[in-house]
Amino acid sequence: MTTVGILGGGQLARMLVLAGAPLGLRFLVLDPAADACAGQCAPLLVGGYDDEAALAEFANHIDVATFDFENVPADSARRLAGRVPVFPGPEALAMAQDRLVEKSLFRELGIPVPAFADVDSRDALDAAVAEVGLPCILKTRRLGYDGKGQFRIRDAGDLDRAWEALGGQAQRVGLIAEAFVPFDQEYSVVAVRGRDGEFRAWPLTANWHVDGVLSASLAPADVPAALTAQAQAHARALAERLDYVGVFALELFCRDGELLANEMAPRVHNSGHWTIEGAETSQFENHLRAVLGLPLGATTARGHACMLNWIGAMPDAGPVLAEAGGHWHDYGKQARDGRKVGHATVRTDRATDLAEVLARVGAALGREAQVQPVVETLRG
Amino acid sequence: MTTVGILGGGQLARMLVLAGAPLGLRFLVLDPAADACAGQCAPLLVGGYDDEAALAEFANHIDVATFDFENVPADSARRLAGRVPVFPGPEALAMAQDRLVEKSLFRELGIPVPAFADVDSRDALDAAVAEVGLPCILKTRRLGYDGKGQFRIRDAGDLDRAWEALGGQAQRVGLIAEAFVPFDQEYSVVAVRGRDGEFRAWPLTANWHVDGVLSASLAPADVPAALTAQAQAHARALAERLDYVGVFALELFCRDGELLANEMAPRVHNSGHWTIEGAETSQFENHLRAVLGLPLGATTARGHACMLNWIGAMPDAGPVLAEAGGHWHDYGKQARDGRKVGHATVRTDRATDLAEVLARVGAALGREAQVQPVVETLRG
Ligand SMILES: Nc1ncnc2c1ncn2[C@@H]1O[C@H](COP(=O)(O)OP(=O)(O)O)[C@@H](O)[C@H]1O
Ligand SMILES: Nc1ncnc2c1ncn2[C@@H]1O[C@H](COP(=O)(O)OP(=O)(O)O)[C@@H](O)[C@H]1O
Ligand SMILES: [Mg+2]
Ligand SMILES: [Mg+2]
Repeated sequence: MTTVGILGGGQLARMLVLAGAPLGLRFLVLDPAADACAGQCAPLLVGGYDDEAALAEFANHIDVATFDFENVPADSARRLAGRVPVFPGPEALAMAQDRLVEKSLFRELGIPVPAFADVDSRDALDAAVAEVGLPCILKTRRLGYDGKGQFRIRDAGDLDRAWEALGGQAQRVGLIAEAFVPFDQEYSVVAVRGRDGEFRAWPLTANWHVDGVLSASLAPADVPAALTAQAQAHARALAERLDYVGVFALELFCRDGELLANEMAPRVHNSGHWTIEGAETSQFENHLRAVLGLPLGATTARGHACMLNWIGAMPDAGPVLAEAGGHWHDYGKQARDGRKVGHATVRTDRATDLAEVLARVGAALGREAQVQPVVETLRG
Repeated sequence: MTTVGILGGGQLARMLVLAGAPLGLRFLVLDPAADACAGQCAPLLVGGYDDEAALAEFANHIDVATFDFENVPADSARRLAGRVPVFPGPEALAMAQDRLVEKSLFRELGIPVPAFADVDSRDALDAAVAEVGLPCILKTRRLGYDGKGQFRIRDAGDLDRAWEALGGQAQRVGLIAEAFVPFDQEYSVVAVRGRDGEFRAWPLTANWHVDGVLSASLAPADVPAALTAQAQAHARALAERLDYVGVFALELFCRDGELLANEMAPRVHNSGHWTIEGAETSQFENHLRAVLGLPLGATTARGHACMLNWIGAMPDAGPVLAEAGGHWHDYGKQARDGRKVGHATVRTDRATDLAEVLARVGAALGREAQVQPVVETLRG
């Protein structure tokens, strides 16, 4: 009997638990919140990620540890790794936690990135903007997610406001300025690497964000095979360099057919939720297979899938459930502004049918704007 | 927040829980055994099905009840139905609990059945055998499962032994003699009926039993459309007559192209496990959708699937996980002779590939005999 410890008890942990039960796995989830939604599906240990006693207790009951939350203090991950195997390893985690380190590594690996520069003072901001150009985005180096900790700088007149908004964090979490990329499309590669080094990637996923938060994903993205191959090669180079074990996502901007890497997430990823119904093996199952040293499952797509994120509150399930290929995921969370509370995946055998179904679902839920870019893409 | 109560905490409850979590459902499982395997995935109330206090406590915490175990005393189901909605209803359950009542209903509905006769004494056994012919099978009317409570009577010389084996149960659970059917193939229809009367059936499944226990299932069965239509029509007639709500299975013998009904199971069924990976919506999800009055999901197959039951102990997962389309289901049970401890489903887009994969898996696990009838069927 193998018990997997998961640091973080949100929807990612919840979906890992649901995917792992058929593998005969037991779980223990560590989360500071007593109402963490994974606690509805697995035993929950309530404690902070930097609480030594909680971590020790956690380590006592598990055989291997992994993450639902990428911002677990790297020191906690290292301490835990002294007790049980931890995948991905603390160093891969630490790399992905810092946008400056991450982008420097991308560049070193020959993965193209938008121009970027470190910002540690108001003067450095001026210098960085001179270097990366305008418009650009000022971001916290650490602890940002879902578009939080970002400020868009359109012209020089925005600089003071940007510093006012984020300058206070320059010392604690660091700042980075990045050239704004007027991309045609965002993509992600969701990939997995086993303990033996085997590497597999799901088909490229097209993503749409609203206010920095993922809104919809479509897979497989309808792109030339060479683009997918390029994206997967970047993901592979990164995984091999980090000796990465488990699932991760590499987010990419695409402009005029050229890919630029945005960031990597060292965990199962929102843009891979479609794999539950849309691929032979889901990202959740393959992450666990990787972490446990089991053979990796096939990452081939089954038809065409679109994932729609539900943010703030769950809509009525009826219109999605009424569609052939409509699948529902309610994370069991309380409604709260800006919170990811669930998603739907619509799967069809043919891309043209997917457009039809999405248009119907969008209309029925009053979410025309959310489905519209996906429908347009599908209809070419 | 809706809490579904499940009477019985075996693998069926476990798979219902795993399918229900994405619908945002909570569960409470009632089972006499403290180590019931569904208790690894949902809160477990330990208590007997006829324990009034336990049932009252159970009812207090749930919004609707359903079954993992079909032999819950009908009186308990009725008592519970006085407190919360129970699906399927206690009368459908009671019908399916008694082979004599069940077969009489099949006959009344025009569903062909093997010759059968009630047996309540040693003399009645002689009379019954004279009526149904030899060879035949003496079965307990109630509480039989997985081939238990059955005695095969080849010739008149077996009669005394049959009575010796089962006669003692004639008063408590009743006995029935059934003509032995030298079938070409066993099939099952797994179907679902909603609270609004909507009826859907998955493609016909071909089944192979060993010693009365399901060993392998193949779906969709490669049969003329008319045979599937006939089987589904039988299932529909039965469901409508019982005002049935939820998933059920109708087991059928087929000889020379003619179907004879064997029994119905008023619950999700072992021969429907392939629907987890092999159909757009699984039997587990659709059972919950039906019980909750949600729209039913599509029952279309996705490719070709074969389910292999693991009985007694789990084999090595490696050979199945190493196959594209290989999926693993470990129920988290202790190994025990004759116990259903898990299953594997192999899914492929093409039937010819399925034969290949099964042959490889059978060889790797030393289970050639288990896969052989399926491989032969696939290879025609
Ligand atoms: N340099 C950029 N150019 C254009 N859009 C960007 C840039 N950086 C971020 N964005 C937009 O904001 C989203 C979130 O930013 P990201 O850097 O991925 O942060 P997070 O960690 O919050 O996901 C991106 O997916 C993209 O839509
Ligand atoms: N009348 C019969 N003729 C031939 N085989 C039978 C007959 N009854 C049962 N069997 C065999 O035994 C298996 C189990 O019997 P069944 O009546 O379905 O009982 P259970 O409730 O234990 O599943 C069947 O699936 C079939 O393989
Ligand atoms: Mg991002
Ligand atoms: Mg049977």
